[in-house]
Amino acid sequence: MSSRMTIAELHEFILVQFPQVAGDFKIEGLGDGYARVRMLIGERNLRPGGTVSGPAMFSLADVSVYVCILSMIGPKALAVTTSCSMDFMRKPAARDLLAETRMLKLGKRLAVGDVLIHSEGQPKPVARATMTYSIPVASG
Amino acid sequence: MSSRMTIAELHEFILVQFPQVAGDFKIEGLGDGYARVRMLIGERNLRPGGTVSGPAMFSLADVSVYVCILSMIGPKALAVTTSCSMDFMRKPAARDLLAETRMLKLGKRLAVGDVLIHSEGQPKPVARATMTYSIPVASG
Amino acid sequence: MSSRMTIAELHEFILVQFPQVAGDFKIEGLGDGYARVRMLIGERNLRPGGTVSGPAMFSLADVSVYVCILSMIGPKALAVTTSCSMDFMRKPAARDLLAETRMLKLGKRLAVGDVLIHSEGQPKPVARATMTYSIPVASG
Amino acid sequence: MSSRMTIAELHEFILVQFPQVAGDFKIEGLGDGYARVRMLIGERNLRPGGTVSGPAMFSLADVSVYVCILSMIGPKALAVTTSCSMDFMRKPAARDLLAETRMLKLGKRLAVGDVLIHSEGQPKPVARATMTYSIPVASG
Repeated sequence: MSSRMTIAELHEFILVQFPQVAGDFKIEGLGDGYARVRMLIGERNLRPGGTVSGPAMFSLADVSVYVCILSMIGPKALAVTTSCSMDFMRKPAARDLLAETRMLKLGKRLAVGDVLIHSEGQPKPVARATMTYSIPVASG
Repeated sequence: MSSRMTIAELHEFILVQFPQVAGDFKIEGLGDGYARVRMLIGERNLRPGGTVSGPAMFSLADVSVYVCILSMIGPKALAVTTSCSMDFMRKPAARDLLAETRMLKLGKRLAVGDVLIHSEGQPKPVARATMTYSIPVASG
Repeated sequence: MSSRMTIAELHEFILVQFPQVAGDFKIEGLGDGYARVRMLIGERNLRPGGTVSGPAMFSLADVSVYVCILSMIGPKALAVTTSCSMDFMRKPAARDLLAETRMLKLGKRLAVGDVLIHSEGQPKPVARATMTYSIPVASG
Repeated sequence: MSSRMTIAELHEFILVQFPQVAGDFKIEGLGDGYARVRMLIGERNLRPGGTVSGPAMFSLADVSVYVCILSMIGPKALAVTTSCSMDFMRKPAARDLLAETRMLKLGKRLAVGDVLIHSEGQPKPVARATMTYSIPVASG
């Protein structure tokens, strides 16, 4: 199965859905149930000590799974996050974050995606997340 | 056990720890292993359709448990979030969010807090979260 | 809203659904979106050191939310667990466990229940869980 | 880093720690922060309809991460599960389950492992889990 939206189309779609934050994210790769997304880290995402905030990492995981779902089902704005689990393993440096997402399930009602987040240039992951989305019925 | 910090002291402490977001939160009640925190919702926290973003709710849950821990152990800046689970039950309205937190555990190494989030004026909760913090060794 | 099944009806229904484990559970209270369930702890649920196993606690949380959903929607065998988060706060003693469940959401498609588990006679909770169930479409 | 225990040593160790369930599990592969564990499914793990129970899958995830930690730190009986998140994506068939675990973190205090569970012979995963263990201080 190939992607139903190009990276350019996805960037445009996210810009409409998440106007306040879309500029923070850059899709760098798309595959079959897979996405690689960069989060551009700036002052607003940092905490004292030069580490990236938890909400920033949540935001990256959330957008990454959303992008992955869109690439599989096409531009439907209604999928909503229903649950999330995250583990924060290491303090990220004050650098961009890179998220690799693979979809574990894309059902008629629920989608489940797993995300592994690295701080650019560090070999060990800083966080992991699983996000569950509810898929709108008969949307289309 | 009474609180080891007043609401005013907690507000000051958070302002130093989370300067970018501290103004969004207002502690409205403190008890024994309990905190009630308001999140002031503005344009930056909204999504199209007039609902509050997931990262904003994550941020509220995170700060609420942090406040609760501080009120129990005193001003120690080093506790870090190690894991989080959240469920998003209903779309919040474009109004302030209210979080009620109770600590389930405050051990020497780990603290676990449960958070229930309401949209002001709505009877049913919009989200729940459990946040786990690692407590610094021999701090203080 | 009153319960759509009595405690006796629920016990019978569970016996058919979970024949291997139904004897371990005893519903002790039912309310509006609330259930209190006892797990009878025996040798098979214990670990060396006289503590109750994690899978036993998972099982109690799972059954408790299931019972709560059944009491609200009536005898439908098809609800399935879609996700779970648990935190294990303290080692349970080798005694019965008591679970208090309250439903946070009972939607058309998803149900979310929160469970707090105590070891009988101990004031502080040993574990917490949130279980999400998928509700069958047009079942009935 | 090579494993500090052989598969035979791990099987023996688990037999002492989990006497009631050790016979259900067979370690089939070990690597650097990696383990592959089979769960032998029998009548006791099944539910009506011929599917494997949730507690059985929880148990497999829990043992798998434990095995992985032991292979990295050596035979220490004290690591305890502190939290868990699981997603159940598909109904497993009435066949053995295979769990692939990779450790995301093995710190001085906390270990985090990710588990993907397949039903033997089915290409898509039936469940995923993240288990967090607390590592005993200065043990051994």
